[in-house]
Amino acid sequence: MALVHAETSTGAWQPIEPVGRLCRTYNALFIVDAVTSLGGVPVEIDKWNIDVCYSATQKCLSCPPGLAPLTLSDRALSAIKTRRTPCQSWYLDMALIADYWTEHNRAYHHTAPISMLYALREALRLVEEEGLPARFTRHQLNSAALVAGLMALGLTPLPTPDHRLPMLTCVTVPAHINEAAVRVQLLETFGIEIGGGLGPLKGKVWRIGLMGESCTEANVLTLLNALEEIGLRSGWVSTPGVALTAAAQTYSRVTSS
Amino acid sequence: MALVHAETSTGAWQPIEPVGRLCRTYNALFIVDAVTSLGGVPVEIDKWNIDVCYSATQKCLSCPPGLAPLTLSDRALSAIKTRRTPCQSWYLDMALIADYWTEHNRAYHHTAPISMLYALREALRLVEEEGLPARFTRHQLNSAALVAGLMALGLTPLPTPDHRLPMLTCVTVPAHINEAAVRVQLLETFGIEIGGGLGPLKGKVWRIGLMGESCTEANVLTLLNALEEIGLRSGWVSTPGVALTAAAQTYSRVTSS
Repeated sequence: MALVHAETSTGAWQPIEPVGRLCRTYNALFIVDAVTSLGGVPVEIDKWNIDVCYSATQKCLSCPPGLAPLTLSDRALSAIKTRRTPCQSWYLDMALIADYWTEHNRAYHHTAPISMLYALREALRLVEEEGLPARFTRHQLNSAALVAGLMALGLTPLPTPDHRLPMLTCVTVPAHINEAAVRVQLLETFGIEIGGGLGPLKGKVWRIGLMGESCTEANVLTLLNALEEIGLRSGWVSTPGVALTAAAQTYSRVTSS
Repeated sequence: MALVHAETSTGAWQPIEPVGRLCRTYNALFIVDAVTSLGGVPVEIDKWNIDVCYSATQKCLSCPPGLAPLTLSDRALSAIKTRRTPCQSWYLDMALIADYWTEHNRAYHHTAPISMLYALREALRLVEEEGLPARFTRHQLNSAALVAGLMALGLTPLPTPDHRLPMLTCVTVPAHINEAAVRVQLLETFGIEIGGGLGPLKGKVWRIGLMGESCTEANVLTLLNALEEIGLRSGWVSTPGVALTAAAQTYSRVTSS
């Protein structure tokens, strides 16, 4: 069973834990793609019965791209070591890589990208400095503010409320908005890049990332202000400040004394 | 036909050009591994009828490891695009990578390791600054001095004179020298790492790299001095300065006026 934890083409936060339980019930190996989720939401590999989990460095870990963190359960490694057909790939032959990582009878497999390892170490140090709970809360807060602002502009998240990713917000774009033109204006006038839809969702959704270091109140407000300005000019926003006000209410910290 | 240009397990500089001619005669595709040669000796891809050539960044280009420069001839790309069996690998499917590199209908394949590309650009800028002819001459001169010094110590290059690589010198170690102990002393006392033999050559050869930025007169003299010191202490060198003197003669620049 293979499942993507943070599904970036739809913005869906997929339920890993119940699927992991099913996999144990039916004795299936469970592979989870945590490329976009790691560092932004909890990834509980052993608790959720994940056998193979891989991620990437350039999403919520905010390290340069070039590495894929990977972990294998004993079950997965055993299946790999007892396979009866030869592995097609040298590069991704996990049995060879296991021999490269071992301390005993270490066998050369590849030259590791040293500079990337230093970069990843520094990125992980920054994650530790913030702390995972604070990091998860930051992603939740900023995405909630973003969603509030987008909904005030008439843009509704594609996933149901209990399956919305904090680091990738996917909203449906109403037909009266020229979505491609807005993305071009965002990029060329405001220097902000958001994603369009893929496959069946092409031309129908926007995909907005708030990952790791880029997940900030400043980025949320700047994007909402840019969308408001474009919408007011194009006629699909009538009330100035509607999105910013909605986001501000989410951030509201000062209580009356 | 697949051939390694600079064969680092033996120190052999393999003749690419005549094999390339044979490949054209018999209409075979020619793949050349230029991992260790690129940036240290000429690599004439089109002139030598090479169809696929790949290299690495961390050898004679002196860039951090993590990228593999690659080039394909039209013949090779055509063979890839007309293959009748599906490619086993997504990661190394050159048809997909060709679609990623094209300007028209560009299809996403992977997230490129941006920082590595900047590093490679800087490494190539330094190669250009020195100039390829000067770079090749530097590799030739330093390896000639190294070989002269090693031969003065009774260590003979494994390849014949016309097949000796400048960036990787492989010498046979006489039986009266405890080669593994010398390598440990070099590393622990002098901070210098040289390679031992692989496979059938294990325990019988040393492999000494002089690649890119590390290919300097200072490194040659420092290594020879360390070997002399170890050899004098262990009894397999009797004349102090014999290796350094031989190397110095190779470097000799001052002519009598």
